Amino acid sequence: MQLAVSSDMLVEGRHFFSTVEPSALGHKALAVNLSDLAACGAAPLAFTLALALPSVDEVWLGAFSRGLLALADEHGCELVGGDTTRGPLNICITVFGEVPLQDGCSQALLRSGARAGDDLYVSGTFGDAALALDVLRGRLGVPAAVLAAARLRLERPSPRVALGQALRGIASAAIDVSDGLLGDLGHILKQSGVGATVAADTAAGLVAARAFYACAASPPDPPPSQDDWRRWALAGGDDYELLFAAPLSKRGEVAAAGQASGTTVTRIGQVDAQPGLRLIDGQGQPLANNHVSFDHFGL
Amino acid sequence: MQLAVSSDMLVEGRHFFSTVEPSALGHKALAVNLSDLAACGAAPLAFTLALALPSVDEVWLGAFSRGLLALADEHGCELVGGDTTRGPLNICITVFGEVPLQDGCSQALLRSGARAGDDLYVSGTFGDAALALDVLRGRLGVPAAVLAAARLRLERPSPRVALGQALRGIASAAIDVSDGLLGDLGHILKQSGVGATVAADTAAGLVAARAFYACAASPPDPPPSQDDWRRWALAGGDDYELLFAAPLSKRGEVAAAGQASGTTVTRIGQVDAQPGLRLIDGQGQPLANNHVSFDHFGL
Repeated sequence: MQLAVSSDMLVEGRHFFSTVEPSALGHKALAVNLSDLAACGAAPLAFTLALALPSVDEVWLGAFSRGLLALADEHGCELVGGDTTRGPLNICITVFGEVPLQDGCSQALLRSGARAGDDLYVSGTFGDAALALDVLRGRLGVPAAVLAAARLRLERPSPRVALGQALRGIASAAIDVSDGLLGDLGHILKQSGVGATVAADTAAGLVAARAFYACAASPPDPPPSQDDWRRWALAGGDDYELLFAAPLSKRGEVAAAGQASGTTVTRIGQVDAQPGLRLIDGQGQPLANNHVSFDHFGL
Repeated sequence: MQLAVSSDMLVEGRHFFSTVEPSALGHKALAVNLSDLAACGAAPLAFTLALALPSVDEVWLGAFSRGLLALADEHGCELVGGDTTRGPLNICITVFGEVPLQDGCSQALLRSGARAGDDLYVSGTFGDAALALDVLRGRLGVPAAVLAAARLRLERPSPRVALGQALRGIASAAIDVSDGLLGDLGHILKQSGVGATVAADTAAGLVAARAFYACAASPPDPPPSQDDWRRWALAGGDDYELLFAAPLSKRGEVAAAGQASGTTVTRIGQVDAQPGLRLIDGQGQPLANNHVSFDHFGL
């Protein structure tokens, strides 16, 4: 086995609102790390937690721990140590997983293996976390039930751990999407030395909240524009879905991996030999890419 | 091999002054983690760094990295990943090391193995970091050269990595002293279910700055009291030396381990069957233990 390690630091006001429910925060702090393991096809083993708190609040700590440990139990990932200190709220989790070696070669999924001609896929739904953020910031109004569903995606993402492991030996490259689909795709393209074409409207169709507008008897007027849906899906961030490439010859195996892990998988584009990232609409016509990915050092 | 993992979080204003030289901070952030590996007899392998910074300051980052990576190189410990984000200054390092298995049993030094009758030892010098802190806080005046030497102990501790490995199979229990000698000894006693007697004046003699008062032509008047020296050595904290127990039958091996690793080792007491911690003076008379260890959640 090869050891896979990932470390993420969450800061109040930057990665979560100060008003977030502490059990949701506990869940998310571990989920974002498990998502990194999923992206390399690793099976979770254990994690450490370093926590800075302004003061000891037993009620807050109880709820935070419940959210954290419930997700840990779900994935058989044990808390094996860490650190606590007084300071501005900061949560740093380091997670350990394992990836099998085959004939001495690691089976880990990397960002660097995408090849021209590969299909590009994503797991699950996209953009609902970003939509929830826009509603919470007062930029958009949606019915309470729509917000509640979207907010679950923002605050309790489901790391695609089973899918990641099922894609070993099938995907040529993979990454988990934390900072926006196009931004994180850029990491695969750069490290693989390739370009890509992405079907923007296929991605825009992956926003789960969109189903509400399709079915509601009296949807809010005006509804979000197609540009809104594209922006949430392509540049929203906080999705914690997998984005991966696989050879055309493995389409059947990709579908089987999705089924085996109970995760929907959607083909959203292809890898090109020509560098750069191209967006096309539903008619195959080029679209301007004016999407900016989330920058944790930005303002 | 067995994997050993340690995680420490350093917060500005709590673990370091905002005015600390950034290369010293880089050194210390890794040193405190390597010290944890030393305490269990592990050989360093690699580490991750998660860093929250209020803003990107290339000069600061350059100096921080130099201090960090110089110590990493010294111990062959590679930076293998991590995270960066905007936020109040916070440094979280998780370090990985390995400990050999012998006949399927881990050779790791634990806190739980001390037995009644064992000798108690410490490595190196004690209390200079606490003395430097008192000078920096204006509670004490010392010549600039004495402060400079003591401050090196506060800001650039030397993790006892070689000694820790040399003590495998010799020490019955070990811990690294970060929060004060007596406070950290308490962890060994609790986990081993034993008590101890400590020679307070032997410990007080381990403050390196004391040599100045012994040799100076005109030492500051009045000099620190014996109580001051005891307090710095026994409850100062930030020493990052090893405190360990070993059977009487291994005195020769302990001395050899110290020599082989180039580290002075001093016997400062013994493990008792009777619970509790007893301090004695140079004449073997009992002393009150009014020392309080550093609490990272305290004010």
